[in-house]
Amino acid sequence: MTEIKNAKDVKLFALNSNQPLAEKIAQKLGIPLSKCTVSHFEDGEISVVVNESVRGQEVYVIQSVSDPVNTNLMELLIMVDALRRASAKKINVVMPYYGYARQDRKARSREPITAKLVANLLQDDKIDRLITIDLHAPQVQGFFDIPVDHLRAAMTFVDYFKAHHLNENVVIVAPDHAGVSLVRRFAEHMGGVPIAIVDKRDNSSRLHTAERMPEALIGDVKGKVAIIVDDIVDTGTRIANSAELLKHEGAQEIYGVATHPVLSAGAVERIEQSPIKQMLVTDSILIPQAKRSPKIVELTVSDLIKEAIARVHNQQSLQTLFH
Amino acid sequence: MTEIKNAKDVKLFALNSNQPLAEKIAQKLGIPLSKCTVSHFEDGEISVVVNESVRGQEVYVIQSVSDPVNTNLMELLIMVDALRRASAKKINVVMPYYGYARQDRKARSREPITAKLVANLLQDDKIDRLITIDLHAPQVQGFFDIPVDHLRAAMTFVDYFKAHHLNENVVIVAPDHAGVSLVRRFAEHMGGVPIAIVDKRDNSSRLHTAERMPEALIGDVKGKVAIIVDDIVDTGTRIANSAELLKHEGAQEIYGVATHPVLSAGAVERIEQSPIKQMLVTDSILIPQAKRSPKIVELTVSDLIKEAIARVHNQQSLQTLFH
Amino acid sequence: MTEIKNAKDVKLFALNSNQPLAEKIAQKLGIPLSKCTVSHFEDGEISVVVNESVRGQEVYVIQSVSDPVNTNLMELLIMVDALRRASAKKINVVMPYYGYARQDRKARSREPITAKLVANLLQDDKIDRLITIDLHAPQVQGFFDIPVDHLRAAMTFVDYFKAHHLNENVVIVAPDHAGVSLVRRFAEHMGGVPIAIVDKRDNSSRLHTAERMPEALIGDVKGKVAIIVDDIVDTGTRIANSAELLKHEGAQEIYGVATHPVLSAGAVERIEQSPIKQMLVTDSILIPQAKRSPKIVELTVSDLIKEAIARVHNQQSLQTLFH
Amino acid sequence: MTEIKNAKDVKLFALNSNQPLAEKIAQKLGIPLSKCTVSHFEDGEISVVVNESVRGQEVYVIQSVSDPVNTNLMELLIMVDALRRASAKKINVVMPYYGYARQDRKARSREPITAKLVANLLQDDKIDRLITIDLHAPQVQGFFDIPVDHLRAAMTFVDYFKAHHLNENVVIVAPDHAGVSLVRRFAEHMGGVPIAIVDKRDNSSRLHTAERMPEALIGDVKGKVAIIVDDIVDTGTRIANSAELLKHEGAQEIYGVATHPVLSAGAVERIEQSPIKQMLVTDSILIPQAKRSPKIVELTVSDLIKEAIARVHNQQSLQTLFH
Amino acid sequence: MTEIKNAKDVKLFALNSNQPLAEKIAQKLGIPLSKCTVSHFEDGEISVVVNESVRGQEVYVIQSVSDPVNTNLMELLIMVDALRRASAKKINVVMPYYGYARQDRKARSREPITAKLVANLLQDDKIDRLITIDLHAPQVQGFFDIPVDHLRAAMTFVDYFKAHHLNENVVIVAPDHAGVSLVRRFAEHMGGVPIAIVDKRDNSSRLHTAERMPEALIGDVKGKVAIIVDDIVDTGTRIANSAELLKHEGAQEIYGVATHPVLSAGAVERIEQSPIKQMLVTDSILIPQAKRSPKIVELTVSDLIKEAIARVHNQQSLQTLFH
Amino acid sequence: MTEIKNAKDVKLFALNSNQPLAEKIAQKLGIPLSKCTVSHFEDGEISVVVNESVRGQEVYVIQSVSDPVNTNLMELLIMVDALRRASAKKINVVMPYYGYARQDRKARSREPITAKLVANLLQDDKIDRLITIDLHAPQVQGFFDIPVDHLRAAMTFVDYFKAHHLNENVVIVAPDHAGVSLVRRFAEHMGGVPIAIVDKRDNSSRLHTAERMPEALIGDVKGKVAIIVDDIVDTGTRIANSAELLKHEGAQEIYGVATHPVLSAGAVERIEQSPIKQMLVTDSILIPQAKRSPKIVELTVSDLIKEAIARVHNQQSLQTLFH
Repeated sequence: MTEIKNAKDVKLFALNSNQPLAEKIAQKLGIPLSKCTVSHFEDGEISVVVNESVRGQEVYVIQSVSDPVNTNLMELLIMVDALRRASAKKINVVMPYYGYARQDRKARSREPITAKLVANLLQDDKIDRLITIDLHAPQVQGFFDIPVDHLRAAMTFVDYFKAHHLNENVVIVAPDHAGVSLVRRFAEHMGGVPIAIVDKRDNSSRLHTAERMPEALIGDVKGKVAIIVDDIVDTGTRIANSAELLKHEGAQEIYGVATHPVLSAGAVERIEQSPIKQMLVTDSILIPQAKRSPKIVELTVSDLIKEAIARVHNQQSLQTLFH
Repeated sequence: MTEIKNAKDVKLFALNSNQPLAEKIAQKLGIPLSKCTVSHFEDGEISVVVNESVRGQEVYVIQSVSDPVNTNLMELLIMVDALRRASAKKINVVMPYYGYARQDRKARSREPITAKLVANLLQDDKIDRLITIDLHAPQVQGFFDIPVDHLRAAMTFVDYFKAHHLNENVVIVAPDHAGVSLVRRFAEHMGGVPIAIVDKRDNSSRLHTAERMPEALIGDVKGKVAIIVDDIVDTGTRIANSAELLKHEGAQEIYGVATHPVLSAGAVERIEQSPIKQMLVTDSILIPQAKRSPKIVELTVSDLIKEAIARVHNQQSLQTLFH
Repeated sequence: MTEIKNAKDVKLFALNSNQPLAEKIAQKLGIPLSKCTVSHFEDGEISVVVNESVRGQEVYVIQSVSDPVNTNLMELLIMVDALRRASAKKINVVMPYYGYARQDRKARSREPITAKLVANLLQDDKIDRLITIDLHAPQVQGFFDIPVDHLRAAMTFVDYFKAHHLNENVVIVAPDHAGVSLVRRFAEHMGGVPIAIVDKRDNSSRLHTAERMPEALIGDVKGKVAIIVDDIVDTGTRIANSAELLKHEGAQEIYGVATHPVLSAGAVERIEQSPIKQMLVTDSILIPQAKRSPKIVELTVSDLIKEAIARVHNQQSLQTLFH
Repeated sequence: MTEIKNAKDVKLFALNSNQPLAEKIAQKLGIPLSKCTVSHFEDGEISVVVNESVRGQEVYVIQSVSDPVNTNLMELLIMVDALRRASAKKINVVMPYYGYARQDRKARSREPITAKLVANLLQDDKIDRLITIDLHAPQVQGFFDIPVDHLRAAMTFVDYFKAHHLNENVVIVAPDHAGVSLVRRFAEHMGGVPIAIVDKRDNSSRLHTAERMPEALIGDVKGKVAIIVDDIVDTGTRIANSAELLKHEGAQEIYGVATHPVLSAGAVERIEQSPIKQMLVTDSILIPQAKRSPKIVELTVSDLIKEAIARVHNQQSLQTLFH
Repeated sequence: MTEIKNAKDVKLFALNSNQPLAEKIAQKLGIPLSKCTVSHFEDGEISVVVNESVRGQEVYVIQSVSDPVNTNLMELLIMVDALRRASAKKINVVMPYYGYARQDRKARSREPITAKLVANLLQDDKIDRLITIDLHAPQVQGFFDIPVDHLRAAMTFVDYFKAHHLNENVVIVAPDHAGVSLVRRFAEHMGGVPIAIVDKRDNSSRLHTAERMPEALIGDVKGKVAIIVDDIVDTGTRIANSAELLKHEGAQEIYGVATHPVLSAGAVERIEQSPIKQMLVTDSILIPQAKRSPKIVELTVSDLIKEAIARVHNQQSLQTLFH
Repeated sequence: MTEIKNAKDVKLFALNSNQPLAEKIAQKLGIPLSKCTVSHFEDGEISVVVNESVRGQEVYVIQSVSDPVNTNLMELLIMVDALRRASAKKINVVMPYYGYARQDRKARSREPITAKLVANLLQDDKIDRLITIDLHAPQVQGFFDIPVDHLRAAMTFVDYFKAHHLNENVVIVAPDHAGVSLVRRFAEHMGGVPIAIVDKRDNSSRLHTAERMPEALIGDVKGKVAIIVDDIVDTGTRIANSAELLKHEGAQEIYGVATHPVLSAGAVERIEQSPIKQMLVTDSILIPQAKRSPKIVELTVSDLIKEAIARVHNQQSLQTLFH
């Protein structure tokens, strides 16, 4: 682990989306969180005041664009406006979860590309750097022209499986077509294990939370420990349906992995009722108490982010954090 | 009233903030609202699909940035992204209420200027024109480099007072220092009547809804019909306190005027319990049923906006709408 | 097929990468190619002169960024500079093959995202629209903020297979992990047929043309007509190796499909020596005479592009061309 | 008072508008003015040469945009161009008087917003920071996206009045409607004294120097020391007329305060002939010898600016200078 | 001569630099000058109001950036700001004389490139087109990314000489080294006549109006009609000294040609006292009555500009005006 | 010679155009070239990977835009994209030869200004500084808004001539009209010697390598050592023809000077067969072995560039390198 140098030039701010994660990062860096007041007027407008001088400072603002997505995004944009006008030297945005990342292309005519819009909003607000984790599509890096440090949480999960001796007789499963590259890379980290793919005939839309039963599984899972790997667990429908299919195809034990626990309404119930033994997620998004479940295991990305901030500030390579 | 020409080149879209106003405008223009689907995923992300071709069309998008402020703003930004990518010829934004307009300067160190941020977000998203009503400060026009058609609702109120024979023995009252210019202009429209000013010693902050009793009234209201004129009625505290002071100073009857009925929590109760006889507002912001009150009189800006759109599209002067 | 209106406002220019395709498009539109001189000085610099007035005209420039990639890209950028300075009204770039599209993300530390650089170069040169076909990743659309009309050649191939009664007992095969979504969509167009995936353990690099033998096939191809579907055929190694694997796994007949025939050195030989029966490509890239082969079947995208240009100019929806 | 650190990294340049102020600032900072040649050719073009290397230096350029307004503005823009091309590290513009600040909104159809144009010219020329004093409207800060350090001269005047025991039985008077907020803040600095407002019926225009007699005074001044507070004294008509009105309403003694002594033709005469006892201004604008008058008292803003530059360069908070 | 079409879509505005030229252009186009009020406040600030609606109109603004250079430039920038905000469709700037054009490169360290600054100011103010005449260096076109229509006045002079039978036994003389290309092109228009060059050893600076006697003439002028051709006549020193040298070298008759009569202080006297027989200039810059002289012959560029505007508006080629 | 300070903050990269020059510069600076892999795929696309961390480093990239011009330019643009995304602090481009510099204006209708396009491409890619040598026109500096350090190789040649006692009885010859200023400055460096000009009647085009015989020489060369000075030697036609003319006019010995040895096909032969005794060039462009000739003398600009880099990095003035 890297120790941060010249810590007095650094200011760390946490907005409202995920204070516990920010506090863990601050503690591990050995830097206190700086003070800012981010409140909401009665009419819904956000009020931001930065309570410490940031003149000439390297500032890191920690905020996930998770539910309430639009409010969290605006908090961030307004905070950046305040910091820029207050003469901060560099504004580094740490966004463990990049909201709207799935809207990364026009799937149909006359759709927006909202993931690009978010990138434009941040760049036009003049942020200097984005640190984020497991983007839905790696091409989103290219939506920016500033440096993006794209961290990977895979090793956090792999270490967990290895520590629990779950790395033999394993198959890694992609719950949809777009995730096959991610799954193959994960399988390599697990030691070059085989993969399988859930081949759903119609996966066109997030609009319907009740997705159809997947058509078929491609690949062999019989008698194996099946680990479904995805970047986001949102409604939970996809992973629950995939688990049903895997069970039907004879998988011995089924695990789920998703970096970002969006867990929108009904997700926890779907996971609990599914054949999934454990659902591994990270604290990139704060899980409210009401959504905690014994099946859901939360690993922390605070070490990953702490290490990234330290190296960015020390001007050391982050190469090993990009796997 | 002006009739719109070449109506087939025009597309009118309404987002979710104020459908009834949009429908009135559409009806008066004689153009149907075009179809778009603006929905919200379970995780709070907004989904926009434009359901009609807009290639080469002049598009008008109607959206107030009212509560929920951030969601309404993002709906608009995403819609504009979709329209631009779908080859709309011109994107005209009709924003009857410009949210965040009060955050138009740094009142203290390290504050944002969120009204400018909103302007930047809209301009960087490449809108071609903004049509809006009664900006909190007219300088906000200068936050834009594109054409801003800044409409004025004053005559709508003045016509109401004249129709109700409330234009004699009248004094127009500014409820704070910043509003004196607005009040003088309103007084001129009322026939050159006198003005008075509520001189509050500490009006620094919107943070406290329970403001202190105003210190003093400057000007004479005894025995007169006092009309408090403001651009926004938010918590209602300011206008209610001002009315108490006016009553104490001997005003005969007290009316309130505010273009934009933000009416955040408690506002309606404060107005109902105050000595105000009638509170005049417009439909620039949709007043939910629960906030309707016999004291609150809603006038419509749909004629004003309809006229503006028709003239913009016909390339006629809007000069008479700017008073 | 749509007839273009107001053809006198249109100028069609072809640069040097693919004159035969441009001529087909022009002929189908019923518009002659406009005259420009694009020559190369002895020292390698490009000289462009536009030989007809383009003042106030809608201009379409047809150029694929194929080998020689950098020269073809610069020809285009210089042409756009000349057209802009010559007062063209709109500059629409028709780029059947978008070179550098595969460099769409940072796969390793300190790599460029050249597909975004190309997008930036075009946008900073102030093009008004991009019309292109089968981008390597659909996210590349989001590299632009201007309208991108992303045409799909799939139906051209599907029609061919149907015309040749090759749509029964078929399996569509993805030659790598990233192409599974493309292959599923192709399979849907073929009538909802099954898919299979070549699961190569190390596909990290284009640097080595001699790739290792694929590890394994996921899915069932025995006794079936296997159609390998990819967007680009470059060195031919991937498709040839995939075909070997399919043959080994018992496929009855093997076809290859790739929209863009990059066909770099050795590709034709590899295809000819492979078990592929026919390799279907389009004329998005000009195939030089020396690379023509009886196994390689060229279908034309000129109808698709012609239709796109006609509808763009007529301001009609292109929706049906995006499947 | 703050001592500047690392003074060797700082270059201080003065252009032609206000050399004496620049020299005072330099002397108080303990840094010599750097050498540049800003001359005018016979044909009116400005010639700038920077005579010392500025590579990697923090540069502060001192220039008020006072009469000759356009020439002083162009001197500044040209100087910034020269400094940027000469590889200055940061270009900080110190503009004690921001010319054109009163043209901050469209008061009528088809007017420019020249205060925004000036902001655009400076930002597009790539200045890094603006330090200015008492902007006509605080919203002008929002015309910029770079840091603006908006200093306030109020305490300079307040200290003078207190030193001269002129802080009892005092009323602060706003000479027009727009200045009421400024006057209330000044009154607070004076110890929470009352205010009054000159209520002029038609203050639409700067075009007529001979303004009509103000209609009325709102508030009570009888027997009091009346201090008229404004940001700018231009033609002097407004302040002279206001003083006449105050005298007529029974004020005991009348003082004038205006940060920026524009003092255009006839202003000094008007002030001298008015009932004003003393007119307090600052040296933000150089008062030529011919316009000096015993009634006009000049206080210096050199301490304020010196302190601002020192803290900006030391990266200390300027909070206390913003009151 | 070309007749303008759709003249009702055109608005022609003249600012203060050269009203007579603007009136001639308007008359020849058959379009009245539109009304705008461009006045100057007492403090030197410029006030612009556009008095006619320009919504959706093609606007041409005629202004030379001649003495007073900075004021004329600011008039133009402010006018453009007003027109843009007033929804003009296209803003075409007609600048017969481009001030600051001679400051087109860094001749010494730490100089500005003011000709580029002027280009940036115009482009950032969002003009759509520049029409100008005889730029000091043709490279200044490249300072812009918008269309620049660079007209040439040479044929106006050539026609004059031919009409006066002054095209035989002629030599064209460059008064400095940079003008040799211009002079050779002029000589070609005159029928391929020979050229000569005044070889001044030190021509580094405009700072000294009293230039040294030129060292030498290169080329042969004995017994010939010598025509000195330059783009600008400023102090007149260069052309007067050149004429002395030519006379000394035996020229029979000496004429001067310069498109732009800057004629700063002393220029007319220098020309009158020189051996120049006639000094030909154009009305690109208004010559005040006091500077008129029998030796100075003014030809008009109003036909050239009229023709350019008509063709730009009709979307016809301007090719023949660029010689 | 200046020693570079803080060399550990500097990274020096060489792309493929001129490795030997880069190595000389690195050696003289005492800094090793950093490692990057710039290779070309089989299909002509360029692959760049930076092999060392550049976080927070001052980077200098050395690349001439010489033949293959477009490939060398794209190598540079891609490298800059990679460096920017990899968090380099400053990206300084050292471009000894600026390709496309001769396309610096529109000589005819509907031509591009490719030298400006190249400037735009570099600036939009966000380079921080350009260091270059002997631009074809000094106005190209103004195509940039970032600092351009424009070095001059003249003294390198002058020192050579002085060392070889070739500075007496000398005349400096401009081979075309545009080069006369360059030649006069060179003549001053040689001690104020006379100049002559080759007056070619038609020098409109680079398109024809076989230029017509020059019409005439202006100036006197009889019995003198004639040194033809140009910035570029491309086809060699111009310099060879000029030499023939000089010989015919009685020059005693003839030398050629050109900073940039483009030497396109046939150039070396033309020089060898001409009356030129020695052709002096620099190593700004790498001369391949096949184009080496005893007549061509290569001087090095590595000292000049080394000195520039050291002073830029040390933040010292470069003034003496600009002569």
